[in-house]
Amino acid sequence: MISVILARPENPENIGLAARAMKNTGFRDLRLVGIRRIRVKAFASAVHAADILEGARLFPDLPTAAADLQVVFAATARPRSNFPALTLEAALAKIAAYPASTRIGLLFGNERTGLTTEEMRSSTFRFSIPQAGRQPSYNLAMAVLLTLFPLFMAGAAAGSGTPVSSAAAAPPLPRAEQDAVIERILAILGERGFLHDTNRRHVTDVVFELFGRLAMTAKDRNLLLAVFHKGAGARAADGGRRGRAPSLKEL
Amino acid sequence: MISVILARPENPENIGLAARAMKNTGFRDLRLVGIRRIRVKAFASAVHAADILEGARLFPDLPTAAADLQVVFAATARPRSNFPALTLEAALAKIAAYPASTRIGLLFGNERTGLTTEEMRSSTFRFSIPQAGRQPSYNLAMAVLLTLFPLFMAGAAAGSGTPVSSAAAAPPLPRAEQDAVIERILAILGERGFLHDTNRRHVTDVVFELFGRLAMTAKDRNLLLAVFHKGAGARAADGGRRGRAPSLKEL
Repeated sequence: MISVILARPENPENIGLAARAMKNTGFRDLRLVGIRRIRVKAFASAVHAADILEGARLFPDLPTAAADLQVVFAATARPRSNFPALTLEAALAKIAAYPASTRIGLLFGNERTGLTTEEMRSSTFRFSIPQAGRQPSYNLAMAVLLTLFPLFMAGAAAGSGTPVSSAAAAPPLPRAEQDAVIERILAILGERGFLHDTNRRHVTDVVFELFGRLAMTAKDRNLLLAVFHKGAGARAADGGRRGRAPSLKEL
Repeated sequence: MISVILARPENPENIGLAARAMKNTGFRDLRLVGIRRIRVKAFASAVHAADILEGARLFPDLPTAAADLQVVFAATARPRSNFPALTLEAALAKIAAYPASTRIGLLFGNERTGLTTEEMRSSTFRFSIPQAGRQPSYNLAMAVLLTLFPLFMAGAAAGSGTPVSSAAAAPPLPRAEQDAVIERILAILGERGFLHDTNRRHVTDVVFELFGRLAMTAKDRNLLLAVFHKGAGARAADGGRRGRAPSLKEL
């Protein structure tokens, strides 16, 4: 199941055009982050897709909006060093490889700023849509459409009934549970004295990117928590090395 | 070479978004039919694609706008009985089969009405972009982008230098010359008493569709004109059958 998340969209007409693009391609779940209400202008540009806007859910922040999703693909025109990006084609191939029941989010940032680094942390993967020159980037609703259209053509639209893949891999956890594991790992790193003021932001990004990319299953979670907790415990029993900060390479 | 033609676009923001989509995908030749000037709002939505708008050419009517083009693909959400439509995919495959030097037009109609039947006559082929439901149709600029993006990805953008095909077939004539042949055929049909008030519109559509679909080369023109002229002459010499109207099947 595919959800579209718009983070802090500025222009109501773009929200309407994105809703229209979703309706055109058969997708229904629209999530809007950081806006108080959907303005009338959005309904004007949505044309016959008012039902998508009426069904849209508003969230105060991105982690809440993405909490139940299992895999989140974030569109970015501007790759960030800590968050490597796939091509659109590679992202579509990854999406196709998940079972159709997987709750997948497609995340698009603000028209002017794109996604902040903090917003990137809620993503499993990033992707960029190829373009001919550096400027201008794709209009927000256009980027939504260019991502949804090939998914629609591949039969991934809601209610199409066509399983995107028959792969029977274990499903990723809801994003909120993945986030909780990552936060726990960061807390353990903090307890070990690994995080300090000068590296906190960078290490947080890197840890989110690394463990986010796992699209963590329940089994992954158990293993990770065991490794971090027991690893710490074993070291404590192993001669007071509990306080040692692991190097980044050990992650 | 790919040109984008917007016939009677109503909303200046759509003109700007279409220009932006062209810039995103590396296409430059924009032709606008039936508008007097490009309004300021178009420049606002074009963002960093003002140069596309500044280079756009305005034409009073579609045959003039398409005169130098060799093959014209018209986008239509609503197939017309006399003008069968391809899928987007099939249209893209046809475009890819022409040599890169072919002057190809992509024609998009008015936001509310789409293309009129008369405008259809300027097209070699029609195509429809698949959509999930009947309503709403794609936004005008979105339809432009969905057509241009795969062409861009296939390397058909201006200046990409990649030949779209190595086929060495004879090039189609400019559309104005193709139109002149079709008009000549219609005139011959008129002289033969084949056209009358009740069928003129339908036969004109059918003749335009049939001979338009040929994407007529210079050789095709010679053959067609010979067939129609000499056919008429031969019949005249063949015992006064000149005035006989050929049935549609003979076409």
